[in-house]
Amino acid sequence: MFAAVRYNRTLHMSLIVVGSVAYDGVETPHGKIDRMLGGAATYIALAAQYFTPVGLVAVVGDDFAQEDTDLLASRHINLDGLERVAGGKTFFWAGVYSADMNDRTTLRTDLNVFGDFNPKLPESYKLEPYLFLGNIQPALQSSVRHQMNGVKVTGGDTMNYWIKDFRAELLETLKQWDFLLINDSEARMLSGEYNLRAAAAMVQAMGPKTLVIKRGEYGAILFHGDRHFMVPGYLLESVFDPTGAGDSFAGGFIGYLAGRGLDLQESHLDFADLRRAVIYGSVMGSFCCEQFGVERFRTLTRQEIDARYTEFKNCTDF
Amino acid sequence: MFAAVRYNRTLHMSLIVVGSVAYDGVETPHGKIDRMLGGAATYIALAAQYFTPVGLVAVVGDDFAQEDTDLLASRHINLDGLERVAGGKTFFWAGVYSADMNDRTTLRTDLNVFGDFNPKLPESYKLEPYLFLGNIQPALQSSVRHQMNGVKVTGGDTMNYWIKDFRAELLETLKQWDFLLINDSEARMLSGEYNLRAAAAMVQAMGPKTLVIKRGEYGAILFHGDRHFMVPGYLLESVFDPTGAGDSFAGGFIGYLAGRGLDLQESHLDFADLRRAVIYGSVMGSFCCEQFGVERFRTLTRQEIDARYTEFKNCTDF
Repeated sequence: MFAAVRYNRTLHMSLIVVGSVAYDGVETPHGKIDRMLGGAATYIALAAQYFTPVGLVAVVGDDFAQEDTDLLASRHINLDGLERVAGGKTFFWAGVYSADMNDRTTLRTDLNVFGDFNPKLPESYKLEPYLFLGNIQPALQSSVRHQMNGVKVTGGDTMNYWIKDFRAELLETLKQWDFLLINDSEARMLSGEYNLRAAAAMVQAMGPKTLVIKRGEYGAILFHGDRHFMVPGYLLESVFDPTGAGDSFAGGFIGYLAGRGLDLQESHLDFADLRRAVIYGSVMGSFCCEQFGVERFRTLTRQEIDARYTEFKNCTDF
Repeated sequence: MFAAVRYNRTLHMSLIVVGSVAYDGVETPHGKIDRMLGGAATYIALAAQYFTPVGLVAVVGDDFAQEDTDLLASRHINLDGLERVAGGKTFFWAGVYSADMNDRTTLRTDLNVFGDFNPKLPESYKLEPYLFLGNIQPALQSSVRHQMNGVKVTGGDTMNYWIKDFRAELLETLKQWDFLLINDSEARMLSGEYNLRAAAAMVQAMGPKTLVIKRGEYGAILFHGDRHFMVPGYLLESVFDPTGAGDSFAGGFIGYLAGRGLDLQESHLDFADLRRAVIYGSVMGSFCCEQFGVERFRTLTRQEIDARYTEFKNCTDF
């Protein structure tokens, strides 16, 4: 059951987020943290909950700290779908960023309980209308999709590993998606096209009619049907830690759509709403970079988010 | 004397462009041309002349073809300042682009007569109000600046070579500039700051209160006083040859300012005009990439430029 009291369920619909909840060890030019809360689903849920009620589907070990559960619960994120494996350890990833923070090297990946992740949805999740499938094996993404009975908008993320070694499985999965968020190198790998307009057309033909190509500090491009929308990256005064920025973008994007009850059908959708979702995604990604890990989300307010949205407009309008 | 008849000199003021006129050998994934008209000043002038009358200051050898002179003259570019060195050869550069066209390798640089370039302005140029100093030795840029008696807006370009090995001379030169256009790696090298907001503040303190940081396919960022404006790169369906795109950006930017008679004094300027100049720069850079070398400028019309400006707005507005 949703613990949320902030939302009126008759007005707001809600979002199921599936993916990794993890511990990260991160080193950037600004410092080093040996172990902190991380994982794609964590960032997506923390960003999305500013816009809509969220239910999480993930797996952790019994080393998962009460304070981290408390953080998620304090944001009214439903944790009925957070499986705890007794005697298991939580997914751990460690990496170090280059001096310019545009590259990172993975130092360690211990999948632990995430290696056997086989997401099963609580009954309370199955009728929700929005589904974001984080970067896990495409067959598992399909399995989750099939457990949802009333889903209106399905989409998510993937990565080079699945594109390269699980291509057929991924293509089967993508057929059912309304949207896909990937970075530019993944879009090129998936499509076999270097030019991003050509790449987008190829990817859209695979299923997701709405495609967001993320370009890190350079912004993002939205493709929807035969239209596109370009947004530059928000220019931060200081980038502290880029970990989770892409996932926070995803959370802002799908959170905004879900919060507004929008679907992605060409006939219903106002393209302006979709543009706004991309800006909210950019805004959430930019906040994420301002502090280590999920730290910024401990204090961030909806008022700050909306102020940055306005600032974004002021810095790009002509 | 200006040959231009298209412009009403009582309404439009004019722009002096100093820099290289050259022959280029270029290979991209789309083909190879052994020798074609090139050079920074060529691209700047060809782009700027859509907006304002242009006078060129450059040097060529007696191998400079009549058809190339004819092309420039047909665009009403004043060639009184185009010096021809008898018995000399025109600057020649050859390079090859990587498969993604984001990198290029220089195969050959024959400075020829450009090695002894010592720009002297014809009398008819000295009272013009706009000056764009292309990428030449900073002391020569200063020399040209001092030959201009009524200049209202001075700025230009530089490159890593001058930043690294002629730093003191460059800093002396920059003091007199109202604007500077450089790419992101040059801005970082010049300022010693990686973060572009910090880098911009450092560069502005060196002299040019208006700074445009070009980011290639990713767009550009304008800094003016304490404000900034971000623009993504126009998303071309096909990039044929990026040679000259940055110079065409410069030509569109300064051409628009000159054509509108704008100066860059904080107290006079509407920031919206400066934003528009950056968009026109982006538009001109995008057209340049559509064909080899200067080819696109043979057919490009002001109507096409304005249509792309509008399309740019439609693809970025939210």
